[in-house]
Amino acid sequence: MDNFVFHNPTKIIFGRDTIAKIGTETAAFGRKVLLVSGRSSCKKNGTYQQVATSLDAVGLEVIEHAGVCPNPTLSQVRQGIILAKTNKVEAIVALGGGSVIDSAKAICAGALVEHDVWKFFIGKKSITDTLPLTCVLTLAGSGSEMNGGMVLTNEDKGLKFGFGNRLLHPRTSILDPGATVTVPREQTIYGAVDAISHVLELYFTTREPQTPVQDRIMEGLVLTIMESCERVLDDETDYQARADFMWAATLALNGLTAAGLGKVGFPMHLIEHPLSALYDIPHGAGLAVVIPAWLSWRARDDPDRLARFAERIFNITGGSGHDRARAGINRLKNWFKQLDLPASLDELQVQDAAIPELADKARAQARIWRMHDYSEERIAKILVLCLKKGPSGS
Amino acid sequence: MDNFVFHNPTKIIFGRDTIAKIGTETAAFGRKVLLVSGRSSCKKNGTYQQVATSLDAVGLEVIEHAGVCPNPTLSQVRQGIILAKTNKVEAIVALGGGSVIDSAKAICAGALVEHDVWKFFIGKKSITDTLPLTCVLTLAGSGSEMNGGMVLTNEDKGLKFGFGNRLLHPRTSILDPGATVTVPREQTIYGAVDAISHVLELYFTTREPQTPVQDRIMEGLVLTIMESCERVLDDETDYQARADFMWAATLALNGLTAAGLGKVGFPMHLIEHPLSALYDIPHGAGLAVVIPAWLSWRARDDPDRLARFAERIFNITGGSGHDRARAGINRLKNWFKQLDLPASLDELQVQDAAIPELADKARAQARIWRMHDYSEERIAKILVLCLKKGPSGS
Repeated sequence: MDNFVFHNPTKIIFGRDTIAKIGTETAAFGRKVLLVSGRSSCKKNGTYQQVATSLDAVGLEVIEHAGVCPNPTLSQVRQGIILAKTNKVEAIVALGGGSVIDSAKAICAGALVEHDVWKFFIGKKSITDTLPLTCVLTLAGSGSEMNGGMVLTNEDKGLKFGFGNRLLHPRTSILDPGATVTVPREQTIYGAVDAISHVLELYFTTREPQTPVQDRIMEGLVLTIMESCERVLDDETDYQARADFMWAATLALNGLTAAGLGKVGFPMHLIEHPLSALYDIPHGAGLAVVIPAWLSWRARDDPDRLARFAERIFNITGGSGHDRARAGINRLKNWFKQLDLPASLDELQVQDAAIPELADKARAQARIWRMHDYSEERIAKILVLCLKKGPSGS
Repeated sequence: MDNFVFHNPTKIIFGRDTIAKIGTETAAFGRKVLLVSGRSSCKKNGTYQQVATSLDAVGLEVIEHAGVCPNPTLSQVRQGIILAKTNKVEAIVALGGGSVIDSAKAICAGALVEHDVWKFFIGKKSITDTLPLTCVLTLAGSGSEMNGGMVLTNEDKGLKFGFGNRLLHPRTSILDPGATVTVPREQTIYGAVDAISHVLELYFTTREPQTPVQDRIMEGLVLTIMESCERVLDDETDYQARADFMWAATLALNGLTAAGLGKVGFPMHLIEHPLSALYDIPHGAGLAVVIPAWLSWRARDDPDRLARFAERIFNITGGSGHDRARAGINRLKNWFKQLDLPASLDELQVQDAAIPELADKARAQARIWRMHDYSEERIAKILVLCLKKGPSGS
């Protein structure tokens, strides 16, 4: 186990009928707040009204920044920052999923500086202070509700970049699984893929058998995310399934699984981000294509780690390490297929001619993330594997 | 999953050569500190000198409260509170294991009130403020380094009581596995039993199959604690084994495993505490006797949960739920036996005539913990099971 610092100060309030606490939780940080939300779903499912009522009940003055889109954009965040500055808000409330929370985080950081917020994303400036953030989560998957990470798309430059800073941790996040029962089937599935990818990014960073505590936690999270996702799809109103899914997705990227692994990278996200930036593909759909390709690439050099994954997640035994690794990847591909997820760039309407540009954009992020081993050539090779359709060897 | 609040603000600094950071971490909270430590081991293993040097390097004035004993006592804590008050210290530094950290927590709370600190333990007063606490952990097991719990023995009354309060969370805890390589074999074993018991208390509180995320994390922790303890005993200088053991023991009682389980009790600790209070038995030794007895008692009503434990931890399959439950308990007893742990009250030099008094003391704690189903009669019945020697049916 490598040295690490683990410090996750976010207070999680989890459970039924907890959204009404957002007013009291936020009032501790100021009287004038910016409420950041998405498009229409929060009004349709009633969470917007619950939040507005709760903020009003404690006498908070609320400025609205609504309409945040999936793959949230820099231009929308810049508008939010202007609103926050003009109105001198003292805190920010996010109501939504990862896109909304990430946008709110960017506004929290951007509202306190004179320079453009994008400079944080390209590593030209560092965050030294932020407005306090509280969240009401309505979509499980990103894990943003309990970490200091955020991802944003600069649509002018076609770049989707992300990074983390401890000051971006929400102060409080309210997770009411009941608020997710109206989440559409495909959004639930995209959330599951995202959460699984967060675990796998870290699981395959580390080397066998150096992190037994973390390995077992990660294996338990993947199993739970898969099972609870299936239970949700069987019965979308199953509160307990929604709860298991929501909490596992939060734990998948709250720092716990990364603690002790040493320098971790997010190669699958690195390769997916240009896809969703340039083609506005749902992040989960892009990941469903990239994950098996990246795992196949990784299995060539390190079949043992993949073999362990196959054993622990899919009970695959027998054969060589390479056999088990391949069988495990195929099982995961088949699981994605069952969920009607795309299996290739072709299915995402992305042509192979796009690979050089995608690799170039991913390389730009790799430089900032200091993932020096991810050259354009390597990224392009993995993208070529994304061209393949269906489980290999099946 | 039940509703819960999870909020663990303790900053963990984990790894090799991290003790030197204690000065900087503590200086954020004040200039004059009380250093609470144990008996001689911290001077023998060099950690005392590292801490003293680090505190001195940032110019802190240090008042000493050394000599905290295992099963730490109210009278020692009262002396520490007088020292803290007289010297108007602004923060407290704990250097040691659970006994030292718990004592330091009690001083942190007691130093800010006029009434006797024991009133917190008997529920007559509530903690509303504490001095900030930083810790350097030198003994894995209690989990006190990352939670708000503490246990103290009132030696006049023969009572060992414990409770938790969120204000008792250390601000920073430094966990250097290298600092534990000189921990004697029996202390490592007692720590393992304590950490395992923390997981089992919660694992057997919940009902199948309502908490899959938590179950898998708990199973992973028990497996890791057992394996890493064995590795430590094989080679006491094995840093990685010490690291796995230390981190798993911390995660075993940091709130993560309890989140979502609903009202949890600590029945095994409830029954063990009077043993170590009245007979000054090491906590881990007392637990080694109580755990199998309590599990056997529990298995009568709820074999399924025990059967799952047997399957997941010891790969026991086949037979009825009762069979698997019994086999699982015997495997755990045998593991304790391998480690030369006591298996009965008799081996602890405790006579059966002591049972009424032990039950009476445990009942006093049960009242404060509102574990109303733990009558003196029930506690006495479980203590009678502690009289038995060796694996039942073996």
